[in-house]
Amino acid sequence: MKKVDVARKILSANEAYAQKNRELLTRHGKRCFNMISSPGSGKTTLLVRTISDLAGAVRIGVIEGDIQTDIDAQRIRATSAPAVQINTDGACHLSAVQVHRALEELPLDNLDIVLIENVGNLVCPSAFELGEDGKIVVLSVAEGDDKPAKYPAIFAKSKVLLVSKVDLLSGGALIDFDLERVRTDARRLNKSIEIFPVSAKTGEGMTAWYDWLTGQFAGTRF
Amino acid sequence: MKKVDVARKILSANEAYAQKNRELLTRHGKRCFNMISSPGSGKTTLLVRTISDLAGAVRIGVIEGDIQTDIDAQRIRATSAPAVQINTDGACHLSAVQVHRALEELPLDNLDIVLIENVGNLVCPSAFELGEDGKIVVLSVAEGDDKPAKYPAIFAKSKVLLVSKVDLLSGGALIDFDLERVRTDARRLNKSIEIFPVSAKTGEGMTAWYDWLTGQFAGTRF
Repeated sequence: MKKVDVARKILSANEAYAQKNRELLTRHGKRCFNMISSPGSGKTTLLVRTISDLAGAVRIGVIEGDIQTDIDAQRIRATSAPAVQINTDGACHLSAVQVHRALEELPLDNLDIVLIENVGNLVCPSAFELGEDGKIVVLSVAEGDDKPAKYPAIFAKSKVLLVSKVDLLSGGALIDFDLERVRTDARRLNKSIEIFPVSAKTGEGMTAWYDWLTGQFAGTRF
Repeated sequence: MKKVDVARKILSANEAYAQKNRELLTRHGKRCFNMISSPGSGKTTLLVRTISDLAGAVRIGVIEGDIQTDIDAQRIRATSAPAVQINTDGACHLSAVQVHRALEELPLDNLDIVLIENVGNLVCPSAFELGEDGKIVVLSVAEGDDKPAKYPAIFAKSKVLLVSKVDLLSGGALIDFDLERVRTDARRLNKSIEIFPVSAKTGEGMTAWYDWLTGQFAGTRF
């Protein structure tokens, strides 16, 4: 069996579970998004602030993917939101079967939306569908404005780009980051991508992101 | 053929080329290091400053690994150092055979040291030996101090940890980063890892890193 055949078989087994996840989420009428980024772009911090700011309005459940530790799930649970931790034990992305088991653990009927925080990796997770309604790529300004050009796959596939840590662009830090270059390069790959520059520290730009997220399930609840 | 057998075959084919690379480098009496980090930790900026500051004292050649584009090789060549770009076309790490071809393109006899900048990825490149004398992991302070705990493999395997962008810790930016936590967690995984906090922007800490790098080939040239 050739390497390429094995890769195809792995992706096809993954797709079968992704389809099960879609069916499960549809049956419960829930939306689900898959957050993907480099390590350290601030996904967990964004999630914590989003859950807290939307408390009482949107009920969010989280699936946390990490190679090791449950540091991130602990941070989510501190907000009182339900979080299921998946440890991949070295693997560089979540797979649909892992997400299937996690979805079965979440109290779906008490949630409006499920957010999956994938393993920190801008490359591998983009190839594995998890049954989500869309991917959300997070890029921190500290990572540089050349990332859509250098890592195009995830920008081409995402519904939303959250440009995080924009507070670092002011206040005297020495960050060179051209937001317009990112917009242009991301839209060249993906005309319909929604782009929200945000700071989970200062709250800058978070309202536009909340409006988008809330708009995803509005009308599906009742 | 099981997935695990295929993985073993891929790693074993890679190891054969890693051994060829070791032999080639030994024959020419050159040292080689494999730089690994998340996207946007500042590997290329560190390389550019290192090459410029050591110009006339250390002759550095670079192998640039990227999924797409030759943006990074262009930045290196602007310093007048030789750089060979490898595009992996989607793959999340460099392999030893790619590095073998690149080593054959570099003017090894006119160099003191070869630095490989791997694909931006804190997970996958750690599993693929390239024939290097050691791995150098780069972690920017913007990524957070929990990364050795969450991505242990690369910290366990590296000779050096460059903690980059330390200029962001001063000057009013809102970065929470506990260098002592990083030191403790990295040394728990790897007692002998050398840790250099550096800023390629301000030059802070770069001398200690240059001393280490220069010490790697001193005495091998003559």
